[in-house]
Amino acid sequence: MAQSSTMIGGDGIYSYKKNSTLQRDGFEAAKKVINEAISKNLDIEKVLSEGSTTFAIADLGCSVGPNTFLAMQTIIETLLQLQQHHHSHLEFLVFFNDQTSNDFNTLFASLPQPRSYFAAAVPGSFYGRLFPSSSVHVAFSSSSLHWLSRVPPALQLRDSPAWNPGRIHYTGASDAVAKAYADQFEEDMEVFLKARGEEIVGGGMVIIIMPGVPDGLLTHDVGIAITFLGCILMDMVKEGVLKQDKVDTLNIPHVYPSMKQMRRAVEKNGCFEIVEMEIRNARSNLDAPIDIESAVMHLRALAEASVANHLGSHELVEELFNRALHRKALFSQMLYSAGIQIGSQLFAILKRK
Amino acid sequence: MAQSSTMIGGDGIYSYKKNSTLQRDGFEAAKKVINEAISKNLDIEKVLSEGSTTFAIADLGCSVGPNTFLAMQTIIETLLQLQQHHHSHLEFLVFFNDQTSNDFNTLFASLPQPRSYFAAAVPGSFYGRLFPSSSVHVAFSSSSLHWLSRVPPALQLRDSPAWNPGRIHYTGASDAVAKAYADQFEEDMEVFLKARGEEIVGGGMVIIIMPGVPDGLLTHDVGIAITFLGCILMDMVKEGVLKQDKVDTLNIPHVYPSMKQMRRAVEKNGCFEIVEMEIRNARSNLDAPIDIESAVMHLRALAEASVANHLGSHELVEELFNRALHRKALFSQMLYSAGIQIGSQLFAILKRK
Repeated sequence: MAQSSTMIGGDGIYSYKKNSTLQRDGFEAAKKVINEAISKNLDIEKVLSEGSTTFAIADLGCSVGPNTFLAMQTIIETLLQLQQHHHSHLEFLVFFNDQTSNDFNTLFASLPQPRSYFAAAVPGSFYGRLFPSSSVHVAFSSSSLHWLSRVPPALQLRDSPAWNPGRIHYTGASDAVAKAYADQFEEDMEVFLKARGEEIVGGGMVIIIMPGVPDGLLTHDVGIAITFLGCILMDMVKEGVLKQDKVDTLNIPHVYPSMKQMRRAVEKNGCFEIVEMEIRNARSNLDAPIDIESAVMHLRALAEASVANHLGSHELVEELFNRALHRKALFSQMLYSAGIQIGSQLFAILKRK
Repeated sequence: MAQSSTMIGGDGIYSYKKNSTLQRDGFEAAKKVINEAISKNLDIEKVLSEGSTTFAIADLGCSVGPNTFLAMQTIIETLLQLQQHHHSHLEFLVFFNDQTSNDFNTLFASLPQPRSYFAAAVPGSFYGRLFPSSSVHVAFSSSSLHWLSRVPPALQLRDSPAWNPGRIHYTGASDAVAKAYADQFEEDMEVFLKARGEEIVGGGMVIIIMPGVPDGLLTHDVGIAITFLGCILMDMVKEGVLKQDKVDTLNIPHVYPSMKQMRRAVEKNGCFEIVEMEIRNARSNLDAPIDIESAVMHLRALAEASVANHLGSHELVEELFNRALHRKALFSQMLYSAGIQIGSQLFAILKRK
């Protein structure tokens, strides 16, 4: 993951911890599917080493909680149900992984007490090895894999067809920009799956939940939200508060893949069988109106670190998000006029061959 | 460990990270012994599970580095030498353990890059279970086990024979006080060894380095340093800066055991064979004079959190350590008049039966 993609730590008003409701909604929806997929596809006796009773679970991109605790609890409850059919008394070791710059102190301070597992943290990018070979039984990643390892290099060259002036994402941008993002996603998934292929035991699983789009579509509401931020930044350029160059060189390294893209990556890697893959919608755009104010708060939790890092000024970031709150109507209009489902998630369960 | 015993995090002037030279000296002296003890007593093939190539090492009470990195590197280098005689290609997983309130963010930020091991952190007191059963091959603990899990309860009762007015440690105190501390040490070691007995694989090892005293002695220079702080606090009481009650109720939960005490604890537990046990002296009091100023700095890194927690005022702590620097002569006199070896360490290598 890019250094810039760490969420805001602590538990302040703009923190990820306080603004991760959307992720939680996505997970609540997926709970039943996770439970079923593990129950149907995991053979506990087979994945454990001879004589071992330790079941290792990793949350890749755990941030600071509390969603990671809910997810780990769900997986463990499922495994405990499964265990009833077996002899051995399992012990669970949960590895909470995120980038080194993640606020692990806050994570540790909010660990559930008591809990049914041993807890450990593993710092580092999941675009690379994190664990010893064949040492993890289930890896889980929610709302993290859409963060690329870096801004696609082609976007940083002024004379490249993928130069993206006045925009900060591929949403609504040129085909060359979209392709540069898609290529980076493909490259990152290759690294991700290679590492997991080495770390996950035979018969073990990878569960992925991330923003994704139906095949043939490109636009996701998180991309619209980021593009909305880009518009506000351009307002600031027009008013002379910010230099145009600052916007031209900012690109948020997010990709919301289609099932087709994900399937291709898994097949190319070859270590995993796709047990389940689908696009799920947290809500339709015909449902009750979206709370735009909390969507902006959520966006701030999500993008503040990246943007602040790039602009190099906390005052400018403060101004950006204040302006965003005042331009709620524009955000709302962009969101509804896209005519897409809101909160759609790609959900994949892979089994190590 | 008591909540109060966390070291000062970050890398400021009074931080543990900047003031842990004495611990490092202790470790440098022990390096050769560790190397020999592991080489002679550890059978790699025997301790690894069938088919597994992961060797798990835990540093119990790691603080924020850099000493923990040196220690882990030493152990891994020893294991790599041993491995040459074996078939399997080992991978190392290091668990850095300390209390939940330890500054793990600082620890992670300073992890060596590149390094020859996978790194994980495990938050929680080592006076209790931290790891799954039979999942750790070597546990190491340096300069940590002298922190008790709590202040001995008898010291908190005003009508107890172990009430310790005007003092903040057992050094130079009544027999009842010393006994209350020793009892707490015995109780804590019972819990520590029971937990390690469950976590360490058969044939695995526990390496302990901690301040300790020769059989028959009670006084250690760290205890003198703490007692010196108690004297300064009493100066502040006499001058009306501090209430007497604040000193009477403060007791630093440190014990520096003798080999006899440690041996008794290990034998009572029964899970471990004592492969090696000795008292080592980092330096004699006949050597070059001690740098009292850095000793005070070191004392601050060690005791600031405990004391600040108790006094509830950072101004008072600031005043305490400023006064300590001005009373260097008293410290020096207390240290030299005790007629003891300086920096003596209890060094123990236990092997899981």
